[in-house]
Amino acid sequence: MPDKATLDVCLSPGLLPLYPLDNKVVVVIDVLRATTTMCVAIDQGAIKVIPVETLEECFSYKGKEGYIIAGERNGRKVEGFDFGNSPFEFMNGIVKGKTLVLSTTNGTRAIRLAKNAHQVVIGGFLNFTALTRWIVNEGKDTLLLCSGWRDKFNLEDTIFAGAVIHHTQEHFLVDSDSAFAAEKLYLNSRRNMFHFVKQSSHYKRLAHLGVVNDVKYCLRPDLTDAVPVLKDGALVRASIKDDLEGEFFSLNNQLKK
Amino acid sequence: MPDKATLDVCLSPGLLPLYPLDNKVVVVIDVLRATTTMCVAIDQGAIKVIPVETLEECFSYKGKEGYIIAGERNGRKVEGFDFGNSPFEFMNGIVKGKTLVLSTTNGTRAIRLAKNAHQVVIGGFLNFTALTRWIVNEGKDTLLLCSGWRDKFNLEDTIFAGAVIHHTQEHFLVDSDSAFAAEKLYLNSRRNMFHFVKQSSHYKRLAHLGVVNDVKYCLRPDLTDAVPVLKDGALVRASIKDDLEGEFFSLNNQLKK
Repeated sequence: MPDKATLDVCLSPGLLPLYPLDNKVVVVIDVLRATTTMCVAIDQGAIKVIPVETLEECFSYKGKEGYIIAGERNGRKVEGFDFGNSPFEFMNGIVKGKTLVLSTTNGTRAIRLAKNAHQVVIGGFLNFTALTRWIVNEGKDTLLLCSGWRDKFNLEDTIFAGAVIHHTQEHFLVDSDSAFAAEKLYLNSRRNMFHFVKQSSHYKRLAHLGVVNDVKYCLRPDLTDAVPVLKDGALVRASIKDDLEGEFFSLNNQLKK
Repeated sequence: MPDKATLDVCLSPGLLPLYPLDNKVVVVIDVLRATTTMCVAIDQGAIKVIPVETLEECFSYKGKEGYIIAGERNGRKVEGFDFGNSPFEFMNGIVKGKTLVLSTTNGTRAIRLAKNAHQVVIGGFLNFTALTRWIVNEGKDTLLLCSGWRDKFNLEDTIFAGAVIHHTQEHFLVDSDSAFAAEKLYLNSRRNMFHFVKQSSHYKRLAHLGVVNDVKYCLRPDLTDAVPVLKDGALVRASIKDDLEGEFFSLNNQLKK
């Protein structure tokens, strides 16, 4: 029997140089709100999402046929952009058949930092079960990359990483302190995740901006089975070759309890 | 009434550039084992402890009158050095009246990285209550610096930071996700800290080297009221100007329960 693939957590993009990316799957996590919004856009029929680091690069797509630009800094929509970073902005058909170009404070930067990995995929509670099935199916060494806040540790991304670990660890070799701690924090939070996340600094930032409903939405599990995956610099919907046998855990059932 | 001083946690030396150190107290934490060993050495009457980053620098003190050199890499004593990094090596009068020159994998490096702070002090469970009284007395903005393992997050230093936060937060302004997470992990661990720490990667490393008793000792609270503080590049015993009123929490009483 071959060795199991490894599963680990990098708690901040600032620590990513410590983790070799060769031949690895990296799951980029920015629960509030970038990776949630990316899942929504792909779910809602966007052809692709181009994550760009600078607002200038994002702005260069403005007015191009078939493109929508969205820019956020410090939780706020940037002036001159069509949209910010709220998942609600991308519902109701607005992105269907379009390419969304998105630049956010942390999430799009984390994607760029991870781009040399074997594959980069996008995770959020919205696609939790689809994502975890996908990484288990791939069976490769996997790194969960928390986008954090300007390279500082953040709570919500860590909890999400802990959820992935808790519910997939039978399929992987998990052996790091960051994975252990993330799982503990998930277990601490899962009976009342909103209450827990309310104590995070980014919740306070977003609440101040009046977007508490965004936070609630970003914590809702399994609303989509879209798994955005990076191909040639843009996120597209992963094709699902799901041949796992037996019952698979659904986060939805857990969190409803 | 003046604003309270802040209390925060940096989870890895790799993230230290994110935290301004001007006018701040930095508590360097390397519970297993460097900062515990430093507390023991000062408690046992060492005049000072010189933390040095390279083994070469450490070795340059070899044979000098009044100096003892100790070097550890990856948990092991380095050949040619008088001692390694086990707290038990520095008991029984061996360091009394001497200067200990010490180089370890993580802890001595963290001290060097923090050296531009207003003050650098050394924390471990051994001096928990003395240390917390000391930082509360100082009343300055304080950063708890976890030494980690080669810049990766580690569990035992984070738990210690969480203990400091939990038991001093009424005196400080605490408002970061890393502080919140560290406190949660401490609360998860405190009823059976050894069991919890057994799941850390450094425990496994040390257990493999046969020094489980070192780990148990490093988790024992309040064995000394020595607070090592950095002065001119060397750690000396802080003078205690303890004018706090009222009952002060003792970790010893908590953990005994």
